[in-house]
Amino acid sequence: MPEHITSRQNPRVKEAVKLKQRRQRERQGRFFIDGVREIDRALNAGLGIVEAFVCESLCSAEEAQAVAKRLEKQAKEFLTVTPDVFEKLCFGERTDGVLAVAATPHHTLDDIELPERPLVAVLEGLEKPGNIGAALRSADGAGLDAVIVANPGTDLFNPNTVRASLGTVFGGNIAAATSEETIEWLRGIELPTYAARPEANHRYDGVIYNQGAALVLGSEAHGLSDVWYGAGVTAIGLPMHGIADSLNVSATAAVLFYEARRQWDAE
Amino acid sequence: MPEHITSRQNPRVKEAVKLKQRRQRERQGRFFIDGVREIDRALNAGLGIVEAFVCESLCSAEEAQAVAKRLEKQAKEFLTVTPDVFEKLCFGERTDGVLAVAATPHHTLDDIELPERPLVAVLEGLEKPGNIGAALRSADGAGLDAVIVANPGTDLFNPNTVRASLGTVFGGNIAAATSEETIEWLRGIELPTYAARPEANHRYDGVIYNQGAALVLGSEAHGLSDVWYGAGVTAIGLPMHGIADSLNVSATAAVLFYEARRQWDAE
Repeated sequence: MPEHITSRQNPRVKEAVKLKQRRQRERQGRFFIDGVREIDRALNAGLGIVEAFVCESLCSAEEAQAVAKRLEKQAKEFLTVTPDVFEKLCFGERTDGVLAVAATPHHTLDDIELPERPLVAVLEGLEKPGNIGAALRSADGAGLDAVIVANPGTDLFNPNTVRASLGTVFGGNIAAATSEETIEWLRGIELPTYAARPEANHRYDGVIYNQGAALVLGSEAHGLSDVWYGAGVTAIGLPMHGIADSLNVSATAAVLFYEARRQWDAE
Repeated sequence: MPEHITSRQNPRVKEAVKLKQRRQRERQGRFFIDGVREIDRALNAGLGIVEAFVCESLCSAEEAQAVAKRLEKQAKEFLTVTPDVFEKLCFGERTDGVLAVAATPHHTLDDIELPERPLVAVLEGLEKPGNIGAALRSADGAGLDAVIVANPGTDLFNPNTVRASLGTVFGGNIAAATSEETIEWLRGIELPTYAARPEANHRYDGVIYNQGAALVLGSEAHGLSDVWYGAGVTAIGLPMHGIADSLNVSATAAVLFYEARRQWDAE
């Protein structure tokens, strides 16, 4: 029988709740996953699940029960909790009845494996977890071969990033690095590099991506850092026909990723 | 000299604060605009500004002062407020020092004017203000000729929609209608209609948009309503190469709008 937690003051519950804070995620080396689909994808990706919290009375949907069963087998610690405790754990937001705490994966550039003519995204300095998550989801959809998250303003395993990514943040070939490391690595593999910039001279659909490409996106507030203004980086931009001078960064990402994929598939 | 408000209990302040609620926006027929860029675009679009609240000590940036001057000329009532009152008005979120209350525009299908071979977007049943706003911003960027917001789950002038749209919601040729009215109108003008659906047989980049097109997007949670499954509507979809079965709706919107524009420009 799994341990059953009935008190909001239980030390495991208190430790898990702290994972809402970035500092605690970094200190504990763990993060929180809520949502049936997200947990399912974390399990599929082979993430180490340290703890699972299941509230049986909330966990009535078929998918939630299936995920709870997988967690019971694969989580290091499997715990059941009362609805009251569950509510504290999930910050009152989700009612799927399943929560997981996973060991934070640390992927570096050395972990990335690429095919021929790869398509790679670089997200530099993005501040909003929702934008990073949405860009990861679009990169997954477009079938990019890797995503490098450079100097992010938030950690990759912020709950809102995980949610906006729909769990695609667990999909593999996602690495964290500094911008300097990233550009050196791109030069090392001689990948044509295109940086999205509002003031670019080249239209995004006027360059050729089907020999492989790195697509670099920066923060809306601060733009790209200086390393992307050097030799070997081509500035590209979306035509802006209206009154705004840019799109939301995750919208720009989707357009670029899908244009690269469209050209690649047409080859 | 403009009236200077020093009390958080001032009745004008209390009425304006209520505009955070949708019901109050509908009852008062007014909505709230914060942010220098958004107010600037509202003025450019000729929106009727009913009230302006300016906090001089917070309004130090050049752009903010310029907008404050425009408001002083164009707002029906121009009021100055203390930082304390301003904080109450802006919900502690923005510090640009300028706020405007505008009369809610009501544009219907009859107000839309279209060129030859128009590109039109239909956003049906979107729930999240941020997604509607981002889609409007992308439609503006791609230079679509009109956007019809059908059966939205939120009002078009929710503060988060205005903000995510960067003020492009004021740009004109944006109309609200029911889904039934919209499809009738599209049939009336004989515009080829493409509905984005996950299970579509046609790739979005395998159809021809350059004779004009309506691009229809629905809610992620509920999909499109039945009217878009009838005759004359072609289902299109983005190829999904990864583990997720769809993109965020505003990412899908950006990809479709820019593919339509790309084809149109290449004509």
